[in-house]
Amino acid sequence: MVKKYSIGNEELETLWEEVRELSLGTSNHVERLQSPPSPIEFLRNYVTPNKPCIISNALEHWPALSLWTSDDYLCQALGSTEVSVHLTPNGRADSLVPHPADSSSLCFASAHVEHMSFTDAFHLISDSGESGDVVAYAQQQNDCFRSEYGVLGSDCDAHIDWASEALGCLPEAVNLWIGNNHSETSFHKDHYENLYAVVSGEKHFLLLPPTDIHRLYIRPYPAANYSYYQDTGGFDLELEDPVRHVPWCSVNPYPSQGREEKEHNDFPLYFNGPKPFECTVKAGEILYLPSMWFHYVKQSPRTIAVNYWYDMQFDMKYAYFNFLQSVNPIA
Amino acid sequence: MVKKYSIGNEELETLWEEVRELSLGTSNHVERLQSPPSPIEFLRNYVTPNKPCIISNALEHWPALSLWTSDDYLCQALGSTEVSVHLTPNGRADSLVPHPADSSSLCFASAHVEHMSFTDAFHLISDSGESGDVVAYAQQQNDCFRSEYGVLGSDCDAHIDWASEALGCLPEAVNLWIGNNHSETSFHKDHYENLYAVVSGEKHFLLLPPTDIHRLYIRPYPAANYSYYQDTGGFDLELEDPVRHVPWCSVNPYPSQGREEKEHNDFPLYFNGPKPFECTVKAGEILYLPSMWFHYVKQSPRTIAVNYWYDMQFDMKYAYFNFLQSVNPIA
Repeated sequence: MVKKYSIGNEELETLWEEVRELSLGTSNHVERLQSPPSPIEFLRNYVTPNKPCIISNALEHWPALSLWTSDDYLCQALGSTEVSVHLTPNGRADSLVPHPADSSSLCFASAHVEHMSFTDAFHLISDSGESGDVVAYAQQQNDCFRSEYGVLGSDCDAHIDWASEALGCLPEAVNLWIGNNHSETSFHKDHYENLYAVVSGEKHFLLLPPTDIHRLYIRPYPAANYSYYQDTGGFDLELEDPVRHVPWCSVNPYPSQGREEKEHNDFPLYFNGPKPFECTVKAGEILYLPSMWFHYVKQSPRTIAVNYWYDMQFDMKYAYFNFLQSVNPIA
Repeated sequence: MVKKYSIGNEELETLWEEVRELSLGTSNHVERLQSPPSPIEFLRNYVTPNKPCIISNALEHWPALSLWTSDDYLCQALGSTEVSVHLTPNGRADSLVPHPADSSSLCFASAHVEHMSFTDAFHLISDSGESGDVVAYAQQQNDCFRSEYGVLGSDCDAHIDWASEALGCLPEAVNLWIGNNHSETSFHKDHYENLYAVVSGEKHFLLLPPTDIHRLYIRPYPAANYSYYQDTGGFDLELEDPVRHVPWCSVNPYPSQGREEKEHNDFPLYFNGPKPFECTVKAGEILYLPSMWFHYVKQSPRTIAVNYWYDMQFDMKYAYFNFLQSVNPIA
């Protein structure tokens, strides 16, 4: 009575190609608009088809665009305000690293979160990766721009007006990001519509649409946490006890030297399939990062960004995505 | 090297249920708005999630709403204007009927299309199924409202303004439908966003979302055409030569008496799964019938409707649909 259905790689490959040919474009570039779209254009041309775009000249009226280029301004405004900073030995928080007890396997490592004055945090981030073994990244994703960094609120818009009107709501969370080129963010997706505004520096994104989920080889990895010891300046990485598994993307798009061949062999659907969409978002620009898109992020030295997370619609597209995700290779 | 993936009925059933729980609603009712939505609300709440709705009080300002209740008005306005009428012996055009050479199998039968004066057509439609073996249905879907019926143009809006603004274009085709209760339209889908305005009478729709495609058992049927002989008042049904196969939905939602058990056994995914969405669209109302939704249509005696077909977006949802369609049962 239970009926079985069959598909092969071919059908998945057709899906990856078709979504590009029909809608996203076959080059791996992200469309760039020279000014903010009207709400209805944004909704019709980008949100509905779940298609990213970059909006240039989007932050002209933000005082932050000039004010935040000055370290003095930021340190005077925030000074002793306590902020959260993510510390790792290598700039890879929420990322796969060698398992502490068995270096032939991997675990999912979360950063050590330290609370310190903004001035201390700012210097630690600026010196990250240069003067020692600590990479610091202010990337607390708990609406921190409206709490910890509230004093900077008037430097930016409280929401992106054309996006709020299109989506019919205000942002659920607004986050501030201050990092440098030693930090990177591994491939993952968020269940939000994301408006990502770069205020200073540059962010580099690799993007893959949700249709490409099988290309990222999402597998369960045991969760581990870094602990940082200020006295020794060293890190410990400890597995969570009891063991908890986190499903995470296995693919590192930039394998370290000597590991390229192994990674290409282990993850052929990623490396042999269509290239990820690639873009650099500059100061004054906003990336619309559609819900459920996988993204890998790097940045230039001293990059500051504010992102606005809006609730996504859990609609037919989401149901289709879950169905696609339930399609499992026959072992 | 070719990898195979496996799924079962269970994953498909989850898809059917999830799209209802998340977005469409778990009752089989279609949401009814008491007045036209704003363009952005229509786009955000219905077009983007591919969700039907009925808009009441949508045609208040159309002269057609009162004028077209008068047979005299229509016959005076159109009189000898030549129009296209679809003739069948049973009211089932573009439908599965017994194969002319082998009544144990089915073929896909198209109507005989006859051109006649509107006055003749109107009387033939009104008398359909009563005074003989001919059922007539004016349902030429070639933008006929703006061509054959152009003289009625000022009785209706040339387009649905809030829909045009939402979709960013004008209708690709506008069609007039005049039929009676002896005509029905079998389950099928259109590659258009459809705004279906009922001017007089009532239309009854059964609707299934595109996610439910496997429940309709789309199979290839040989194409056949009715020919009508006015002298004898009889029909011939002839297979096309060379043979051409048309993929069509196998399910008749209302099996004739005595065939219920067989139909339930042959098409269990339809009859045992979630009920189709069901609605009656009354004079003065518009149904938004989203692109790619399967629909089965019946109507009350003497129903007149105008439908506006807008181009759909061939985006990620469409790519997902094609992927779903490519998932085939293992024989």
